[in-house]
Amino acid sequence: MALWPKLTDAQASPEARAVFDDIRTTRNNDYVNDIWRVLANDPALLARTWEQIKTVMKPGALDALTKELIYVAVSTTNDCEYCVTTHTAAARAKGMTDAQFGELLAVVGLANQLNAIVAGTRVEVDEKYRS
Amino acid sequence: MALWPKLTDAQASPEARAVFDDIRTTRNNDYVNDIWRVLANDPALLARTWEQIKTVMKPGALDALTKELIYVAVSTTNDCEYCVTTHTAAARAKGMTDAQFGELLAVVGLANQLNAIVAGTRVEVDEKYRS
Amino acid sequence: MALWPKLTDAQASPEARAVFDDIRTTRNNDYVNDIWRVLANDPALLARTWEQIKTVMKPGALDALTKELIYVAVSTTNDCEYCVTTHTAAARAKGMTDAQFGELLAVVGLANQLNAIVAGTRVEVDEKYRS
Amino acid sequence: MALWPKLTDAQASPEARAVFDDIRTTRNNDYVNDIWRVLANDPALLARTWEQIKTVMKPGALDALTKELIYVAVSTTNDCEYCVTTHTAAARAKGMTDAQFGELLAVVGLANQLNAIVAGTRVEVDEKYRS
Amino acid sequence: MALWPKLTDAQASPEARAVFDDIRTTRNNDYVNDIWRVLANDPALLARTWEQIKTVMKPGALDALTKELIYVAVSTTNDCEYCVTTHTAAARAKGMTDAQFGELLAVVGLANQLNAIVAGTRVEVDEKYRS
Amino acid sequence: MALWPKLTDAQASPEARAVFDDIRTTRNNDYVNDIWRVLANDPALLARTWEQIKTVMKPGALDALTKELIYVAVSTTNDCEYCVTTHTAAARAKGMTDAQFGELLAVVGLANQLNAIVAGTRVEVDEKYRS
Repeated sequence: MALWPKLTDAQASPEARAVFDDIRTTRNNDYVNDIWRVLANDPALLARTWEQIKTVMKPGALDALTKELIYVAVSTTNDCEYCVTTHTAAARAKGMTDAQFGELLAVVGLANQLNAIVAGTRVEVDEKYRS
Repeated sequence: MALWPKLTDAQASPEARAVFDDIRTTRNNDYVNDIWRVLANDPALLARTWEQIKTVMKPGALDALTKELIYVAVSTTNDCEYCVTTHTAAARAKGMTDAQFGELLAVVGLANQLNAIVAGTRVEVDEKYRS
Repeated sequence: MALWPKLTDAQASPEARAVFDDIRTTRNNDYVNDIWRVLANDPALLARTWEQIKTVMKPGALDALTKELIYVAVSTTNDCEYCVTTHTAAARAKGMTDAQFGELLAVVGLANQLNAIVAGTRVEVDEKYRS
Repeated sequence: MALWPKLTDAQASPEARAVFDDIRTTRNNDYVNDIWRVLANDPALLARTWEQIKTVMKPGALDALTKELIYVAVSTTNDCEYCVTTHTAAARAKGMTDAQFGELLAVVGLANQLNAIVAGTRVEVDEKYRS
Repeated sequence: MALWPKLTDAQASPEARAVFDDIRTTRNNDYVNDIWRVLANDPALLARTWEQIKTVMKPGALDALTKELIYVAVSTTNDCEYCVTTHTAAARAKGMTDAQFGELLAVVGLANQLNAIVAGTRVEVDEKYRS
Repeated sequence: MALWPKLTDAQASPEARAVFDDIRTTRNNDYVNDIWRVLANDPALLARTWEQIKTVMKPGALDALTKELIYVAVSTTNDCEYCVTTHTAAARAKGMTDAQFGELLAVVGLANQLNAIVAGTRVEVDEKYRS
């Protein structure tokens, strides 16, 4: 159960509705994800969060699909069901194939494994990487 | 302090030395990272781990740089100093620019932020993503 | 599915029932949360855990609401659904407003973001903070 | 070793220097923490991050000290040395006493313990908290 | 919702079916857990993962039950519902008693608590443990 | 740098000194680890924490070495340097061999890998494990 209600367009404040509209325009899609309807209970938090996502996730030095893969890798490591589900869908919408998804899982699994093995051995960073 | 000593080539068992040699051949580089010298204290663990990295990190449906970025994203989320340091170096060696590194940090930071905000609101996965 | 059954008052051992009674007295409320009914399968673990919560969460140098906010911040970072849900309810019962909940989410999200960005840059603690 | 150099005022771009100046003005203190000098390698990331901290951490429905305590609780859970060190110093500067620090540690430790015990029992959220 | 379908024996590729058969033979049990049916969407990932589990979890210097307890401890710390549920069942099948389960929960809870308290105090490793 | 000073016996309060003495008696060893000297800044926290460790870590349904292995598994997953270092030393003192340490690392690494792969596929708990 969400700890805040999902606000409909009618229930949202004008500031929150303006964010909903910008989401629709930016994504060229009428659907507004439930996380935004929940964050609409704090319009300033909603506005800041959406502005940051819009800026950070747009294609730049890294393309949009690579950014989604990185986002899914983090969300998988943190086991965020909502985030893994919605951003895996976003990655597929941007072209991620089954073969790429399998390799993403393999790399994420490997890194989590090695992070733990390194932590258990307390190996220090090689001299050559310390200036 | 590493909890196992770093084994030199002379100290390593023949099985471990064979892995060192394969690392050198595969990477076309004489340097063997300290994590391998530490894992050489359990040659079977060393051999399995190296075999897995060699298989998983080689270019496939995802290119080698994208795999490194995913690896760094996980290691950053887990705050593994050794892993972040060595794989950021590997990503740079494969062409990662400063602009790409900045965007990687921004996406990893954003995802960790949103993972937490989602966790705090307990928003459930949208109906449309549940079949 | 809980991996241990929730014990009713009748099923619980005398030691566990005594803890249930102390929970009711301390909270001035007849309801005993399910976590206690599950932990009642190991009465010693139940008793120790309840004693610790009773001691640590009572008002002291920090007031009861501040302690709940800290508890929720940790549980959100660890994505513990049970803990976030019940302790957010406890915080509301102790006076947390919607505006405070929104700011709590914002700080928790920010800290998780910055923890990750710091981890990715490997910036060291400023000289001035090291004595 | 930071993976980006700490930029002096002279090395920083005009955009980054403007952020340094705003940090000094906002905090009424000439010192600029090393994290900002490192993030100055990506002036847009620096500007966004500072703007967010300035907005989120200023007193609002929660006072400034409570926000620092929450920040420290998250950073402790994530074991971020830089963040715990600098924000514990900030909390002390805002009035945190030794007794409050001890209680903060106790609550953070307790919550991490209970988060784990809940995870291990798989107890589900009580019916009364599900609407 | 799993992000990949669970493949039946008929839907699985020959390589994946061979893994299913090896799981059945190794465990002397006809049931194939859903995680394997999901991973069958990437037969190479399925094969590598199963091979690793078979090797790592078989009795060696540590007996099979101790390995399951360690596996559950990690999965509990990471709050992996699937992993905690299935490996707690495996531990019970290998003889874990209720009393042992209670002590496992107590140690896992204690370690998570102390890990956090250590992180919050920034205590350094004692001189005597650094060579 | 520890955020609280390590208190010598002379600096510690009588309540804290009594805990130091109990540690020495219980462990039959004059050395008091630095974490206790740091926690001595809050004698009540010190006393509660030591009492809990003494109770939880003593041999019971699980033997002392198995408890240390579980403790190390959690601390490795959380990457707690102090905890991994001191409890690996404790495990060795209780008889852990190099072969057992290698298998511990392998299981901890495997579990962290599988926890992540499960999180990325969102596979649900098999029907047979849900009553």
